[in-house]
Amino acid sequence: MIRADGRRPDELRQVTILRGWQEHAEGSALISAGRTRVLCAASVTTGVPRWRKGSGLGWVTAEYSMLPRATDTRNDRESVRGRISGRTHEISRLIGRSLRACIDLKALGENTIAIDCDVLLADGGTRTAAITGAYVALVDAARWLGRPDAIITSVSAVSVGVVKGEAMLDLAYSEDSTADTDMNVVCTGADGFVEVQGTAEGTPFDRTMLDSLLDLAVRGCAQLTAIQTEALRGPVPAGPPRPGGAR
Amino acid sequence: MIRADGRRPDELRQVTILRGWQEHAEGSALISAGRTRVLCAASVTTGVPRWRKGSGLGWVTAEYSMLPRATDTRNDRESVRGRISGRTHEISRLIGRSLRACIDLKALGENTIAIDCDVLLADGGTRTAAITGAYVALVDAARWLGRPDAIITSVSAVSVGVVKGEAMLDLAYSEDSTADTDMNVVCTGADGFVEVQGTAEGTPFDRTMLDSLLDLAVRGCAQLTAIQTEALRGPVPAGPPRPGGAR
Amino acid sequence: MIRADGRRPDELRQVTILRGWQEHAEGSALISAGRTRVLCAASVTTGVPRWRKGSGLGWVTAEYSMLPRATDTRNDRESVRGRISGRTHEISRLIGRSLRACIDLKALGENTIAIDCDVLLADGGTRTAAITGAYVALVDAARWLGRPDAIITSVSAVSVGVVKGEAMLDLAYSEDSTADTDMNVVCTGADGFVEVQGTAEGTPFDRTMLDSLLDLAVRGCAQLTAIQTEALRGPVPAGPPRPGGAR
Amino acid sequence: MIRADGRRPDELRQVTILRGWQEHAEGSALISAGRTRVLCAASVTTGVPRWRKGSGLGWVTAEYSMLPRATDTRNDRESVRGRISGRTHEISRLIGRSLRACIDLKALGENTIAIDCDVLLADGGTRTAAITGAYVALVDAARWLGRPDAIITSVSAVSVGVVKGEAMLDLAYSEDSTADTDMNVVCTGADGFVEVQGTAEGTPFDRTMLDSLLDLAVRGCAQLTAIQTEALRGPVPAGPPRPGGAR
Amino acid sequence: MIRADGRRPDELRQVTILRGWQEHAEGSALISAGRTRVLCAASVTTGVPRWRKGSGLGWVTAEYSMLPRATDTRNDRESVRGRISGRTHEISRLIGRSLRACIDLKALGENTIAIDCDVLLADGGTRTAAITGAYVALVDAARWLGRPDAIITSVSAVSVGVVKGEAMLDLAYSEDSTADTDMNVVCTGADGFVEVQGTAEGTPFDRTMLDSLLDLAVRGCAQLTAIQTEALRGPVPAGPPRPGGAR
Amino acid sequence: MIRADGRRPDELRQVTILRGWQEHAEGSALISAGRTRVLCAASVTTGVPRWRKGSGLGWVTAEYSMLPRATDTRNDRESVRGRISGRTHEISRLIGRSLRACIDLKALGENTIAIDCDVLLADGGTRTAAITGAYVALVDAARWLGRPDAIITSVSAVSVGVVKGEAMLDLAYSEDSTADTDMNVVCTGADGFVEVQGTAEGTPFDRTMLDSLLDLAVRGCAQLTAIQTEALRGPVPAGPPRPGGAR
Repeated sequence: MIRADGRRPDELRQVTILRGWQEHAEGSALISAGRTRVLCAASVTTGVPRWRKGSGLGWVTAEYSMLPRATDTRNDRESVRGRISGRTHEISRLIGRSLRACIDLKALGENTIAIDCDVLLADGGTRTAAITGAYVALVDAARWLGRPDAIITSVSAVSVGVVKGEAMLDLAYSEDSTADTDMNVVCTGADGFVEVQGTAEGTPFDRTMLDSLLDLAVRGCAQLTAIQTEALRGPVPAGPPRPGGAR
Repeated sequence: MIRADGRRPDELRQVTILRGWQEHAEGSALISAGRTRVLCAASVTTGVPRWRKGSGLGWVTAEYSMLPRATDTRNDRESVRGRISGRTHEISRLIGRSLRACIDLKALGENTIAIDCDVLLADGGTRTAAITGAYVALVDAARWLGRPDAIITSVSAVSVGVVKGEAMLDLAYSEDSTADTDMNVVCTGADGFVEVQGTAEGTPFDRTMLDSLLDLAVRGCAQLTAIQTEALRGPVPAGPPRPGGAR
Repeated sequence: MIRADGRRPDELRQVTILRGWQEHAEGSALISAGRTRVLCAASVTTGVPRWRKGSGLGWVTAEYSMLPRATDTRNDRESVRGRISGRTHEISRLIGRSLRACIDLKALGENTIAIDCDVLLADGGTRTAAITGAYVALVDAARWLGRPDAIITSVSAVSVGVVKGEAMLDLAYSEDSTADTDMNVVCTGADGFVEVQGTAEGTPFDRTMLDSLLDLAVRGCAQLTAIQTEALRGPVPAGPPRPGGAR
Repeated sequence: MIRADGRRPDELRQVTILRGWQEHAEGSALISAGRTRVLCAASVTTGVPRWRKGSGLGWVTAEYSMLPRATDTRNDRESVRGRISGRTHEISRLIGRSLRACIDLKALGENTIAIDCDVLLADGGTRTAAITGAYVALVDAARWLGRPDAIITSVSAVSVGVVKGEAMLDLAYSEDSTADTDMNVVCTGADGFVEVQGTAEGTPFDRTMLDSLLDLAVRGCAQLTAIQTEALRGPVPAGPPRPGGAR
Repeated sequence: MIRADGRRPDELRQVTILRGWQEHAEGSALISAGRTRVLCAASVTTGVPRWRKGSGLGWVTAEYSMLPRATDTRNDRESVRGRISGRTHEISRLIGRSLRACIDLKALGENTIAIDCDVLLADGGTRTAAITGAYVALVDAARWLGRPDAIITSVSAVSVGVVKGEAMLDLAYSEDSTADTDMNVVCTGADGFVEVQGTAEGTPFDRTMLDSLLDLAVRGCAQLTAIQTEALRGPVPAGPPRPGGAR
Repeated sequence: MIRADGRRPDELRQVTILRGWQEHAEGSALISAGRTRVLCAASVTTGVPRWRKGSGLGWVTAEYSMLPRATDTRNDRESVRGRISGRTHEISRLIGRSLRACIDLKALGENTIAIDCDVLLADGGTRTAAITGAYVALVDAARWLGRPDAIITSVSAVSVGVVKGEAMLDLAYSEDSTADTDMNVVCTGADGFVEVQGTAEGTPFDRTMLDSLLDLAVRGCAQLTAIQTEALRGPVPAGPPRPGGAR
């Protein structure tokens, strides 16, 4: 079966990652996956939230948001509505958990890295693109801090789903909105699962289908890991002055 | 390995379900799973939200909340803080999705069933107990509406996790808070998966462990299905007057 | 005149008080007054709010809330609406003031007791049942703290009203909603008034009627005092470990 | 006993009522009671809230507020804090109920009168001054509407309290803050009680003291009624153009 | 051209300033400009906001608000809506900036003066009247603090606009609502500009018109400066006790 | 005098405008002015706000926001804080007013165009860059609607200020933060002023300086008008399907 955009069922969309796009940030990455585009910024601050003080451990947190016109029709801003939606909360928490899985919080020291993922253009898979891009921003922030070893593995994420009865990798919006099952999978570069979130939108899925989806996702994450590694090759892009030293 | 409360790794806590406890509601159930106790109420209203009008389809929605002193130490009320936490949003959405999986929204007609799950006492597994209990309240509400056939399958949920390297069923709070991996699984009575949400809290989990967890969860849900079926035997408990007829 | 539920005008509904129902709390009571059911929990924390620090005095505060389906038709949660209603605020303040009247805040030391009153089922008189039940939870919390002498008197509350021209004790919802005058009275066990709140819903009331209502309320509170005393007989129910000692 | 400001225990502070002060309003009154000063405005709108439409009945509602520097030390604005305090809610509700007691909502027709009571200067008794002044604004608004007969009685309010063991009328702030018991009483011009709200701040009060307080309050309200009557003599002050006619 | 109220195009409305009206405040002024009436209060507190601590500099801040019935038709309270409107924010910020231009924050020491401007009656020009009146309250507050020299110049404000093609001074509401251009100008007593805010409501304005408007505004501010000076002559009105001394 | 980035006092930073960057929008432009980068999207919806229905007139509104890490240090999101700041409100209102000055709302018909200006990178002059870019997005939206003639003039904006006593055009952040006077000027392509907002941050400014600033601003806007015209040359970029027709 050929998909609307010509991909095979097990094929990722084209993914590119540009580092240093938001130049004030200690780490940043603009990731594109097909027509989905997410700007990820990592901000370093000395110190940790109050409940964590004196623990010797650092903290990583994340916030996800979408520009009002990232989508087909305009969405009201959450700042204007005065409330953050359940969906936004849920995705922010997922991104934060996923990134904490790749970092040694003790090696980070009592520093906080806040990751902002702002969706500039949305065509499905925005939360998984955010995780994949945020990892790159996080690595640059850890390097900026002089603590590259705090990164203990890589993390990437991809969506899979059942469309017209067939398991497919990396759903575009038009596929996602008609999928029977939608699953987001976060993996480490070392083949471990960090998150598995599968939801039957219509018909429940059986164990066989679940196995096929997991197979596809693992393979997709491996490809994303390679793209992340490639993007992180080369010098740290110019950023703010490093603590205690020249730039 | 024997657990703190004497259970085997693959053993559920004792579960009881009392129907009709909140007597104004069209359906209600007080579910206890060990020391976790959740009051579930199903409220029927004629009509559907605006975005669904004229579709001929009904709607099922859910809200989850916890009394301030359901837990070891008191939690501030979300009404007092003026915001619903991300955790509450996420669980409410999960319960709603899970229940919509067991109902034929066309057969429900343009009616809305709102499920309230209020945790009176918390000892781990509150969201899965809420789903399991809410299904019972939902069935009574559908019967009250005179539309029992809208229920097309049953739904139950259980948590599983990896504690000290071993897969375990139905974690109590003391187990959950030390688990390496925590997974909530929602199944239909017909062996299909509705939701699979696994999170590595510490070490990522591998495919073999994932398989063991899924096995445990499927068996736990089958037992819960039997308990639900037993609870639903017998007459509809007294409730508000039925539409268009005697009680 | 015989009332809808067969009571005489000066007759209380059946009242039962179960201690220890919410087992994590330092004190708790489930009170039923006819079909009204309120869960009261007393939570002890060391220390007092900032504005009271260093005074040597303790503090007692209260919050009242209703489950969405405690009533005939579902009410939206205040957490979802993002605001606490005027009615909720007013009742929470009343409960707090009433309970502070029975405690010697100096003998309590710089500790705070927060009382949560959650209405599980509502059939009139929820605020007065909350006060009567909360007193029992408060006593257990003071005992748990090892400061039983901080309780200097008991406090109970009852509603009275004018229904079809006649003064009546302890109104059920159907009576309350048609009453001309509605009055809530809080008394100590030593025959003192703590609060008198009377409102003419329709016709103003005269001094003679006011006297009759006060007579009824005083007698009702005396009976409630006896029920509280009886409930508090017997050992402190199991609760969390006591400070500085074995359970 | 002579009071700090030289009054006898049963003596009101000096009260003046100026009509028409807020000239855009359909009715308005600036009431001074000693150093307490409240600006009351009555705004008429055609129609009633949605839940009352088609009933043939009008509606009267009230809002109470205090300027930030009405008091000794500045209070933050509730608009800035983003929440209305429990105290404000409670007083607004009290004023609304009290005014609805003096009006025939059927004779008002499907019109709404919103009363705003803004405290410009506070020295105790702001809620009772607000009720007494608001009545005058309400009468002018009813006249403006051409429905003076909707006013079926007058309403006035006063505080009483127990200060150093003695019952006193119309407490100033310095008295109120040290009173053992504080009671607000709302009476009609025809000697009926609309509201009785007594609170023991310290020692509970007994039946004899309650009777003394009620005696004082009834006499105080009778004097306020006379002042209201006097203020309402004379032509309706200039206001906005009347509906359907010349001014 | 003669204006609706008989003024010439370059003529101010009648302006009066009463000091000490809100007697608890360290400085206060009730300013009337035609039918616009604004109550301005200056509240002194020791210390400065956290971000300014240790700087040796004081702080002046302002809040603007309108009573619900200051206007022709009633406006909902911002406290009830739960949000401050953009207009209110903008005007509060303008008033604060304008007043900071007349004070030497170093000479003020680490003290904060909060200015509240509450519009009691609105007929155009409320923000400029607020600035002009607030200056008077600010001077009295600085004197109360014993730091009159912190006031380094005076500040006054006036509106100008283009009505039917002609430049006019001090617009009333009926003029303002039909003006093509509306401009608010804040000047010091020493002929300097503090703020110039001109907006074309309909047709853009050209450089010549801009010059005419600025000319008018400068002359209006000079007259207001004289009125302020006159009002500030005479003894400081009675206020709260001075720090460290007799009144 | 030469500026930090080598510009002459009367020199704009380099400005580029890319159309169609946010491809779901009916009009969009990514504008860069030096290191300031703002993404502007114009969203068309049929119909107008309720208060404007039936008027035959369209509506244009705007919202301004900044990504958390657009700036040197991270700013909390307004959605997370639950409130929109005064600054954001003020700028959103300014952008909306400015754009309404260039459009014939009658020729627009009862359609609404909502402009979103999101600052991706901030280095001073974000509000003026937003206006200049938003105009380009607005023109494309009007063309998409088939109503290009609704655009009756062009609008552009620039900041000017007094830095170390000298008037300068188009301040970068480092200049703006030390400027004595800061002025934003919005002009039409036909040499009219739409907005003039000048603020003395420290010393007040005199009439001569005001004239110099206006001269600089008018010349800067003329250059921006040329850049806008150039950007708008060429075909409408691909966007969503046009109403009633092929793309």
